[in-house]
Amino acid sequence: MRTPFRKMHGLGNDFIVIDARARAVAMSNARAAALADRRTGIGCDQLIVLEPSEIADVRMRIFNADGGEVEACGNASRAVGLLLGGEQRIETLGGTIASSTGADGVSVDMGMPRFDWDAIPLAYAMDTLTMPVGWEDLSDPTAVNVGNPHVIFFVPDCDAVDLARLGPAIETDPLFPARVNVNVASVVGSDHLRLRVWERGVGLTRACGTGACATAIGAMRRKLVGRTTRVDLPGGTLTIAWREDGSILMTGPAATSFEGTFEDSDFPA
Amino acid sequence: MRTPFRKMHGLGNDFIVIDARARAVAMSNARAAALADRRTGIGCDQLIVLEPSEIADVRMRIFNADGGEVEACGNASRAVGLLLGGEQRIETLGGTIASSTGADGVSVDMGMPRFDWDAIPLAYAMDTLTMPVGWEDLSDPTAVNVGNPHVIFFVPDCDAVDLARLGPAIETDPLFPARVNVNVASVVGSDHLRLRVWERGVGLTRACGTGACATAIGAMRRKLVGRTTRVDLPGGTLTIAWREDGSILMTGPAATSFEGTFEDSDFPA
Repeated sequence: MRTPFRKMHGLGNDFIVIDARARAVAMSNARAAALADRRTGIGCDQLIVLEPSEIADVRMRIFNADGGEVEACGNASRAVGLLLGGEQRIETLGGTIASSTGADGVSVDMGMPRFDWDAIPLAYAMDTLTMPVGWEDLSDPTAVNVGNPHVIFFVPDCDAVDLARLGPAIETDPLFPARVNVNVASVVGSDHLRLRVWERGVGLTRACGTGACATAIGAMRRKLVGRTTRVDLPGGTLTIAWREDGSILMTGPAATSFEGTFEDSDFPA
Repeated sequence: MRTPFRKMHGLGNDFIVIDARARAVAMSNARAAALADRRTGIGCDQLIVLEPSEIADVRMRIFNADGGEVEACGNASRAVGLLLGGEQRIETLGGTIASSTGADGVSVDMGMPRFDWDAIPLAYAMDTLTMPVGWEDLSDPTAVNVGNPHVIFFVPDCDAVDLARLGPAIETDPLFPARVNVNVASVVGSDHLRLRVWERGVGLTRACGTGACATAIGAMRRKLVGRTTRVDLPGGTLTIAWREDGSILMTGPAATSFEGTFEDSDFPA
């Protein structure tokens, strides 16, 4: 039996999307990792499995390239919003997300940010607006959970940070019992940030949607930018708004690269 | 209009194969590079376009991930041999290759190696069996052309060579007017080599079929191994034989990863 899939990307953050709503598709961490292999599989940053939902229009399961299942992925939410079209409510492990596809791209309601130390989560109680911790030149970050955990460092020039070296050290620091996504950001103007992200379980990526959300919210909490800001990532630009009701709205592009099928027996579950 | 393709690999060296025998498919360097992009395209080391041939069963055009068209690719020849099945004669820019698919994998006749300095090509006359040149710790290589140019360094431990740094410097040295594939190899036994390859226009790969052929022939010329040898690459093992008639026979695995289609207008030619 062959399983159909669609390859999509949002700002170069790329996904295999498997629609398992009509026919169940078995997925395991090993199978996800094999499909994510860029040379012997299909290749992706994240594998998305769409399943029926009892509480929303669709349920989205998200597996990182290492096979681990994760709570949330903002770029993947935009891709799924584009795939399904119109207005959609998407159930994830990190909460239910509303998406809306329009002429200027796909807008996704990323829900409420959380700031309590045990909601990030951190290993012990601490101020999350300005954390009294540091790793070499990176210090005094802020932490935000937007469905998944983020720590954000504001620096004069985010391109000058050796994130490939510092990212994995911070990701796996015992301070973060669920590990953490590591963001380094620079303020360009009152509605403009630049951002690079070390993604938990993935590494450096061209664009991380939840990282853009968490970094924008962190910058807004610190009064570095206003309630709407553009965020320039290496793969392109997202617009993040912190709405009156407290929820985060992320708007940006998504696209289909190609469609395909794989033989089930080549990738055992 | 949508164009169908097949994604294949040989020892993790991966290919997009587009069959343009029945319907012509326009290909340009820019289109090949866009399709080869692993996040916004399909992703591959090499893009293969199969066309009708006037002198063989099929014509194989080979584009590297940077979009440049190249003469030969041994792993791609095995993949195309598997795709077409049985006995095939495959025309390439580097010459016509015979393939045969059997139970132990796909065997490909890689033609005659060439050793003349102007056939490699080198910029000036020089002994190609032991070249009096060096780059840092790498010195006295041998050079072989097996449809494309190779330089081979025999070292005690090929894993200890910083090939990511030295490879691009040697590839672009003025000594090699057509650039060069850079091989570092170690002798394990009289029928057993270990090999890592910096591929011209590609970089480090898990396995390079022509590199295995060139390295085996270079080792045979230097009496380091016999007329048949296994070559262990990071992605797996090939068997190389230098036959009585002077031609090279390469045997190893090939596989299909998945099949798909892309929208022509998403990848303009």
